[in-house]
Amino acid sequence: MADLQTQMKQAVASAAVEQIKDGMILGLGSGSTAALMIQGLGAKLASGELKDIVGVTTSFQGAVMAAELAIPVLSLSAVDRIDLAIDGADEVDPAFQLIKGGGACHVQEKLVARRADRFVVVVDSTKIVDRLNLDFLLPVEVLPEAWRQVQRELAELGGLADLRMAQRKAGPVVTDQGNLVLDVSMAGGIEDPQALESRINNIPGVLENGLFVNVTDEVLVGQIADGAAGVRRLQKQ
Amino acid sequence: MADLQTQMKQAVASAAVEQIKDGMILGLGSGSTAALMIQGLGAKLASGELKDIVGVTTSFQGAVMAAELAIPVLSLSAVDRIDLAIDGADEVDPAFQLIKGGGACHVQEKLVARRADRFVVVVDSTKIVDRLNLDFLLPVEVLPEAWRQVQRELAELGGLADLRMAQRKAGPVVTDQGNLVLDVSMAGGIEDPQALESRINNIPGVLENGLFVNVTDEVLVGQIADGAAGVRRLQKQ
Repeated sequence: MADLQTQMKQAVASAAVEQIKDGMILGLGSGSTAALMIQGLGAKLASGELKDIVGVTTSFQGAVMAAELAIPVLSLSAVDRIDLAIDGADEVDPAFQLIKGGGACHVQEKLVARRADRFVVVVDSTKIVDRLNLDFLLPVEVLPEAWRQVQRELAELGGLADLRMAQRKAGPVVTDQGNLVLDVSMAGGIEDPQALESRINNIPGVLENGLFVNVTDEVLVGQIADGAAGVRRLQKQ
Repeated sequence: MADLQTQMKQAVASAAVEQIKDGMILGLGSGSTAALMIQGLGAKLASGELKDIVGVTTSFQGAVMAAELAIPVLSLSAVDRIDLAIDGADEVDPAFQLIKGGGACHVQEKLVARRADRFVVVVDSTKIVDRLNLDFLLPVEVLPEAWRQVQRELAELGGLADLRMAQRKAGPVVTDQGNLVLDVSMAGGIEDPQALESRINNIPGVLENGLFVNVTDEVLVGQIADGAAGVRRLQKQ
């Protein structure tokens, strides 16, 4: 039997799949919970319970999974709209602001989230926080040549930024777009996510940061109650 | 004898080279006027009139020129500071705000300009305008997959954006970083460069736009007076 965290992820992924209707163009997120959601979608397509679905993936990982599960996929530049996007998050605050980018896919993920008519976040209960960035670092995707310069500019904003290093290659993690990732800790956490998102994006050499502000419509939280995995809908504050 | 515009460019490039001192780390811009400046620098290094110069280039074009002229070059991530950066511009307004990016190098150029202790712009008099973007389109570098989405978001800001097409390859211009360029016309020109720079950079999929706001220390203008090419220093308003 899967461990408790995996059970939470499975429960919330299943709840998200239930929101999918025939004929939808779907944003397919990245990360472990989104992967379970994509598997659930593939199973419903294979059984005929769902049909006429087109996916838009947010990572190499998602594109490979979709291919293996025979989920039809279009590129973002080939679709005019996305009905529903479902993705995980690394942190969710009470106002539904997010940090994403643990998987270094936050640029594609933000493009898809912004394009979607409806953006649903699926997380287990460990991701819910009162204030962003006290535990999870904020990922910032940067041009390779610019990383030291961006690091200095982030320091001027009060952020301590480390280059994300790879574990199965020498040197830094390289994103699916060929860039690098700085992981940033703001002293005291992030007080104003909207202002910080904009300030960081205005630093030359920054492609995008992992703050997702005012894009989330619903947050589904996997949790354990009485020893069993369940799902609750988070109330926005 | 060179035509009048080339004479203006040559005059202003020479004036810029006179600001270079021994031992400086120099930002070397892109475009036709910057190319003349780099040639002038190379000549002074070859003759021994200048020494101990290190350049940081802003484009493939500049890197090749520097190599041909034996100007030592470091990458942006290898220098801690830049003493002086010299670059051209496509439009300069009375407050020294710029549009750059006609050569699709504005991402590298902005990194170098921002890093420099002193940023000097060299233009011929045809580039001086009262308001930005009435004549020259604003270049925005975007991720290939995101161009249509960014185009739509720019339309919501009142901008008409066309994908820049190549002339010696099929399809779009691809930047030195492998991205695409949207050329944007804002209805009525750009009223508030600082606000627009920030708003455009906050659109997911945008790497950087060609507005250079509050980075220019000096503008040297090549002009023709009494049939001869000369240089004037623009007064900031």
